[in-house]
Amino acid sequence: MKPILVFQTDFTYKEGAVAAMYGVVKSVDRSLEIIDGTHEIPKFDTWSASYRLRQYMKFWPKGTIFVSVVDPGVGTKRRASVAKTKDGYYIVTPDNGSLTHIKRTVGIEEIREIDENKNRLRGKGTEGVSIFHGRDLFGYCAARLASGIISFEEVGPSYPVEEIVEHPIYQANIENHHVEGILEISDPNFGNLWTNINLKDFNKAGFSYGDIISTKIYCKDKLVFNENILFQAAFGDGEKGKPIIYNNELMKIGLAVNMGSFTEEFSVGFGPEWKVIFTK
Amino acid sequence: MKPILVFQTDFTYKEGAVAAMYGVVKSVDRSLEIIDGTHEIPKFDTWSASYRLRQYMKFWPKGTIFVSVVDPGVGTKRRASVAKTKDGYYIVTPDNGSLTHIKRTVGIEEIREIDENKNRLRGKGTEGVSIFHGRDLFGYCAARLASGIISFEEVGPSYPVEEIVEHPIYQANIENHHVEGILEISDPNFGNLWTNINLKDFNKAGFSYGDIISTKIYCKDKLVFNENILFQAAFGDGEKGKPIIYNNELMKIGLAVNMGSFTEEFSVGFGPEWKVIFTK
Amino acid sequence: MKPILVFQTDFTYKEGAVAAMYGVVKSVDRSLEIIDGTHEIPKFDTWSASYRLRQYMKFWPKGTIFVSVVDPGVGTKRRASVAKTKDGYYIVTPDNGSLTHIKRTVGIEEIREIDENKNRLRGKGTEGVSIFHGRDLFGYCAARLASGIISFEEVGPSYPVEEIVEHPIYQANIENHHVEGILEISDPNFGNLWTNINLKDFNKAGFSYGDIISTKIYCKDKLVFNENILFQAAFGDGEKGKPIIYNNELMKIGLAVNMGSFTEEFSVGFGPEWKVIFTK
Repeated sequence: MKPILVFQTDFTYKEGAVAAMYGVVKSVDRSLEIIDGTHEIPKFDTWSASYRLRQYMKFWPKGTIFVSVVDPGVGTKRRASVAKTKDGYYIVTPDNGSLTHIKRTVGIEEIREIDENKNRLRGKGTEGVSIFHGRDLFGYCAARLASGIISFEEVGPSYPVEEIVEHPIYQANIENHHVEGILEISDPNFGNLWTNINLKDFNKAGFSYGDIISTKIYCKDKLVFNENILFQAAFGDGEKGKPIIYNNELMKIGLAVNMGSFTEEFSVGFGPEWKVIFTK
Repeated sequence: MKPILVFQTDFTYKEGAVAAMYGVVKSVDRSLEIIDGTHEIPKFDTWSASYRLRQYMKFWPKGTIFVSVVDPGVGTKRRASVAKTKDGYYIVTPDNGSLTHIKRTVGIEEIREIDENKNRLRGKGTEGVSIFHGRDLFGYCAARLASGIISFEEVGPSYPVEEIVEHPIYQANIENHHVEGILEISDPNFGNLWTNINLKDFNKAGFSYGDIISTKIYCKDKLVFNENILFQAAFGDGEKGKPIIYNNELMKIGLAVNMGSFTEEFSVGFGPEWKVIFTK
Repeated sequence: MKPILVFQTDFTYKEGAVAAMYGVVKSVDRSLEIIDGTHEIPKFDTWSASYRLRQYMKFWPKGTIFVSVVDPGVGTKRRASVAKTKDGYYIVTPDNGSLTHIKRTVGIEEIREIDENKNRLRGKGTEGVSIFHGRDLFGYCAARLASGIISFEEVGPSYPVEEIVEHPIYQANIENHHVEGILEISDPNFGNLWTNINLKDFNKAGFSYGDIISTKIYCKDKLVFNENILFQAAFGDGEKGKPIIYNNELMKIGLAVNMGSFTEEFSVGFGPEWKVIFTK
C-alpha cells in the first residue's frame, strides 16, 4: 500500500492554492491518499510548523510522508528537502527551521535536497513561477516519492544532517520546587499555553496534582502574570473561569482557563521571550 | 465495505489536534475512510454538536460512524459512549447532551460506555493525558469499531437509554394565525436563524408563501425585533437587503436577510431565551 | 476509475451544510472520492468562484468533476448546469457567472441544464426545500455523473454555450513602458493582489526583473497608491516589509509586501474599479 500524504501549510483555504497543489498530486498518481494536517499554520511561522510536526507525527503509520510548506524564503537559496526520520517517516519541506523539533527529539537519519531538474512540475505553463513551490516542487516531488516513481535516493543529493537549519531550543531548568521554562506555543483555538517543561520533570521537582503553585510569567523580563494556580488532571475538575496548570497532550505542562482562554484573558503570548517560573 | 468515519469537533484546524486524532485512526486501520463533518462547532457547545448531527446524519449511508468530540468535561466523570441510532447509524461521543436531537427525533436504540481498558490508545508515551480523548479514546475506539476489530457489543457495557444526558428541547406552540417558537440555532456563515417550527405546522397555522407576517423576537421577554416580513420560497425572490421568512433545509421556518445577515443586522442570537412569535 | 469530485462553495465549515452535501454524494456511490477545493469563497461572490476554478482546474487529472456552489439566486430562475470544458473537465454549477474565466480561457465545449425530475434528491423529507441546491441538486447530480449512473447527455437538455452568464472581463492595455490593468482578485491570506496583466505582456512592454517601476493604483479614478516598486522574482529576494511587483503562480503580475500584507497595509481592494498603472 502506498504511503499517506499529510499536508501542513500556511496557505489556508481562502483561495485556490491548496486545490492546485492537491491537483498536482492526483495528476502524478490518482490513487494517492491525501489528508489535511492543517493549512492554518500562522503565516511564515516555521517554528509552529516544526512544533506541529512533533505534535502529531508519531500517531501516524510508519512510512507516512508529511509535506510541510511554510516557506517565507520561497524562490531564494534555502534548500528544498526531503528528510527521513529515525523513526521511519518522511518530511518534504523547505529546510528553514521546520525540522527543528523532529531533529532534536526523534532525530533525522538522512536528508536530501530535491533535484529540481528531475522533481519539479513542468508543462503547465507555469515554468517562470518562483513563488509557489508547494504546488510545483514539494507537492509534486512528494507525490512521486509516495507513488514509488522515485526512491528516496532519487529525490536528489544527500547532505549532512548537521547542516539542517534549526531554531534555538530552550531547555527548562528543574530544581526542587522551582521550575523555569518558556511558553513554547499556544493552542490558538482554546487559548491554552504549552510550556517546554515535561510532566516527568515537573513531578521530579516536587509538584503533584492538587498543589497550589506560584506561577509567574515574564515577557522580556517584565512580570505580566503572577498568581497561585491549582495543578490538576482535567479541565473539568476545576472551577469555571479559573486558571489551571495541567498536563497537556504531549505530556508537557500547560496553562489554561477552565472553559475560557488563558491567552486572551491574560494577554499572554509565546516564544523564547515568554518565561514562566513555577515555585512552591 | 467498512463504514465511513465522519468527525465533528470544536478543535478547529488551527493546531495539530485533528491531525493527531486522524493519525491514530489510520494507525488502527490504514484503509478506513475519514471525512470531516466539521471542526468548527463553537467551543464547548454541546447543543450545536447535537443539532449538527441532526442536520446531516440522515444524508449518509446507513452504518456510517459519526465521531462527535465537543467535550468540556473531558477527564471528568461524564461517560464516553457509543450510541446506535434507531435508523442504523453509530455516534461515538461524550454523553453530555450531544445526543439530544438524535435521541428525540430518530431515537437511540442502544448505548454503551467505552471500556477504557480495552478501547483506549496505549504505547505512544501519552498515558497520563486526561485532556484529549478525541485522540486517545473516541478516535481510537471509533476506528476499532469501523475496522471490525471490535463489535458494537465489545465497545463496553450498555446502559439504559433513559440515562442519556439531554438538553431541554422546546416545542413550538401552534394556533390559528399565531405561532410561538424559539430561535434554535443560527447558520453562522450566512447569518440566518433557524426556529424550532416545522413548515408543516406553520402551514397548518394558516401561513403560506406570499403572506406578510408580523414577526416579533424577544430576548428574555424584551422585544428586540418587530417587523412585518414576507414569507417566501427562495432567497432570490425577494428584494436585496430585506428580511424574509423561509423554509430552511431541514423543513423548519427560518429568518434571513436576502444577500445579508439577519444575525448581524438585527443583533439576534439563539437559544431558549430567544422567543419568536409570528401572527397575522 | 471513477472521476474525482472537487467541491468549492461559500458554505464554510461553520455548520453542517458541507457534511449534508457530502453525505448525499456517498449515499449515491460509496466509492466516490471527494476532495475539498475550498468552502471559503466569499459569500455570494460568483466572480471569485469563477477565478478559483481557473486558478486550479488545469492541475487536476482530465475528467475531474468540479462542483461549484456559490448560488445567491438559489431557488430562482437561474439555470442549474453541467458544463464540459474544451480541455476535458466537467463543472457542475449554477449558471450565474461562475463559468466566466473558464469559458474565456480554455472554453466550454457543451453545457446542459440539470433535469430536476431525474437528477434531484428525493425521499429524505426535504422535498419543499428551495434554498439548498448544493445538497439536493448539484451534489446529487454530480455524484450520479461521477458514478456513471448517468452520462453527460442524461444530465438534461443542452443549451447554447453563448447563453452562459458571464461577468465582464477587462483586458490589460499594453504599451511601451506603460501598462494599465485592473486588480482582478486578491490572495486573502497573504494579502497579495493579482492583476489581469500577463507576465509575457509585461515583459513585452519593457519591464524586467530588477526594474524599479512607478506603480499607481486608482479606486474609481481616485489615486490611492503611488510608489516606485522593485519588480523581482521571489518574495525573499527583497527587503522585509517592502512592497514588490512579482510574477504570480498563474503567470500574471502581482503586488505583495515581503512578509507582510499589501491589501491591509495600503487598504487596497480588487474588482473592475481598481485600476493599476505601471510606467517607467
